Amino acid sequence: MIDFLEGEFFKRTEKTQSLMYEKGLDAILLCTEAEIRYYTGFRSLFWQSPTRPWYVIIPKNGKPIAIIPEIGRELMERTWLDEVITWPSPRREDDGISLLVEALKKSKTIGLLMGEEATLRMPLGDFYILESRITGSFVDCSQLVKEVRLVKSEAEIEVIKQICNVADGAFDRADKLFHVGQPLNEAFRDFKIALLEEGAEEVPYLVGGAGQDGYSDVISPPSRQTLKTGDILMLDTGSTLKGYFCDFDRNWAIGKASDAAKLAYSKLFKSTEIALQEIRPGMTCEQVFLMINKSLGDSCSDIGRMGHGLGIQLTEYPSLMLSDQTVLVENMIITIEPSLAYGDGLMMVHEENICIRDGKPELLTKRAAEELPVLI
Amino acid sequence: MIDFLEGEFFKRTEKTQSLMYEKGLDAILLCTEAEIRYYTGFRSLFWQSPTRPWYVIIPKNGKPIAIIPEIGRELMERTWLDEVITWPSPRREDDGISLLVEALKKSKTIGLLMGEEATLRMPLGDFYILESRITGSFVDCSQLVKEVRLVKSEAEIEVIKQICNVADGAFDRADKLFHVGQPLNEAFRDFKIALLEEGAEEVPYLVGGAGQDGYSDVISPPSRQTLKTGDILMLDTGSTLKGYFCDFDRNWAIGKASDAAKLAYSKLFKSTEIALQEIRPGMTCEQVFLMINKSLGDSCSDIGRMGHGLGIQLTEYPSLMLSDQTVLVENMIITIEPSLAYGDGLMMVHEENICIRDGKPELLTKRAAEELPVLI
Repeated sequence: MIDFLEGEFFKRTEKTQSLMYEKGLDAILLCTEAEIRYYTGFRSLFWQSPTRPWYVIIPKNGKPIAIIPEIGRELMERTWLDEVITWPSPRREDDGISLLVEALKKSKTIGLLMGEEATLRMPLGDFYILESRITGSFVDCSQLVKEVRLVKSEAEIEVIKQICNVADGAFDRADKLFHVGQPLNEAFRDFKIALLEEGAEEVPYLVGGAGQDGYSDVISPPSRQTLKTGDILMLDTGSTLKGYFCDFDRNWAIGKASDAAKLAYSKLFKSTEIALQEIRPGMTCEQVFLMINKSLGDSCSDIGRMGHGLGIQLTEYPSLMLSDQTVLVENMIITIEPSLAYGDGLMMVHEENICIRDGKPELLTKRAAEELPVLI
Repeated sequence: MIDFLEGEFFKRTEKTQSLMYEKGLDAILLCTEAEIRYYTGFRSLFWQSPTRPWYVIIPKNGKPIAIIPEIGRELMERTWLDEVITWPSPRREDDGISLLVEALKKSKTIGLLMGEEATLRMPLGDFYILESRITGSFVDCSQLVKEVRLVKSEAEIEVIKQICNVADGAFDRADKLFHVGQPLNEAFRDFKIALLEEGAEEVPYLVGGAGQDGYSDVISPPSRQTLKTGDILMLDTGSTLKGYFCDFDRNWAIGKASDAAKLAYSKLFKSTEIALQEIRPGMTCEQVFLMINKSLGDSCSDIGRMGHGLGIQLTEYPSLMLSDQTVLVENMIITIEPSLAYGDGLMMVHEENICIRDGKPELLTKRAAEELPVLI
């Protein structure tokens, strides 16, 4: 399970420690899957189990230190880390807390993810105990970790490109996969199988919708409704390779397409195209949002944003939305995701994945068809 | 997306509110996927995105109240809830907090999951702001929610039985699926496809291992090593139907089995058999642990427990381990999961899923073969 060379993790840690030095942090305490994977390379589906807490400390200097349940020792020892401290978890009376107290005893200012998008994946009760037993104190380090994570290495970009290609391959099989009379849940299942056959390691995210002329929500699991002539089918997948996500969708008309659906599709295609041509390093996320929204005639839906970062999570910082002043820089990967409300409560979403480059962005997905594809 | 009749959610809420009355709680605040799904029926893969917080309040009387991002309104309104309050999330300056303050203004004692297995799925910074703006205070309600969740309804038991059957069907295809020379990652992929073909809606969890005479860890993603004659292959899946998990594994020898592997398998089979025959309501989890451990000659591995609860999460309360004094009662669903260390750093795990019944437990999985199956 070596997804990347050691140098990759070394650079992430070094960049983090250099920012820690600037901010006066003595250590960072991590307890979440994405961040622990990011800094150690430890990748396991075992995070599905909520029972055991997992911790990694990034010290001022040197490699991160893992403080984890014994069940994870073998896998963690295969990563680049030197120090793996374990205990027989679950152990209700002390589930790793005294080990954390010991490891943090010399740290005065300890970074913890407390800001936007952060989760505390440890019992809050345990956190209070930890806080009372250390001499230092916790401060928010969300901005610091965000700054490191949002610029991708070429190795990361390459993996995301690969998983985009995998999903492209599955989307390309749409005319063989979907047909009138097919229950929507079977269409989802067949598409998931296609993704696995094309090379996806996991399909943690597949949502979509279908309905006459359009769909009305984009986060539901599939019903058993059958696909009908005139339906618009949309599938949106976050599949993974080495734990890295793609996140994009495709739309099709089943049998025939109404003018309303064709028009919505065309507007979204053009709006996406403008973004693909015009986005440059130096723009803020808010500026990109305004550019896309303007191209849609300021009529976007209420999803709240027009795209987001992409990487080891399906959605990452930043958000293409009003008030997000994050400046785009080279080697950030983001989704471009304009959505449009039309007709009687219908909506449509287009999505592509890009890498910010010097000049025009690099498209990581195979561009959607210019006109709404009709599956006969 | 109606996985259960309204009466199911009504009963869960009523039972919770009756315990809230006993404990003097005015409200419970939920922010995690499993609990929000449990009380509302809201099921979506959208939780994969860490960007937006989602909240549900259980009041003293009446239905739960959802305070969620606008993107979830349509889906939440399809549940049994009457009150769905939304805001255009993500909204950094106030991501739902003022709505929570308003909804909790009359509550003095507010339950929050702070205990074992709990996660705070909202920014800790936002939690501190919320705490400072309400007049009431938060207390841990983990034990209360645990008490409600660990006894399953017949409707829940039926769904878990179904997903166990689905996985049984996929495991039964082992002799067609796995063979010498097959890379382990392809074996995993083919098994995932088999699970989907058999009817699994999602396969959030598939882990396993393979190696000569046995395997050495059980939480790794698959490598590209090829299966060899004499390998023991183990696959362990948490697949889902309507958001409910099965969680069990199967072991096979590839081509031939060594005496050491056959012996380990036989010990674990017998140990599991004792549990299946002897477990009764009224026993504590610790007693079951000791019974299984004794049958293994007190030589269990260091996984830390011998089984756990099962339901809307891959692992739930309680744990079959020392110090867990939870008393087994009818209609709890648990896994029986003895594991054995043997040879030079090898281990083997057996797992079955059972429902505690009056008298002998009901086996939900198709019993593993009595002797280590050899795939030719």
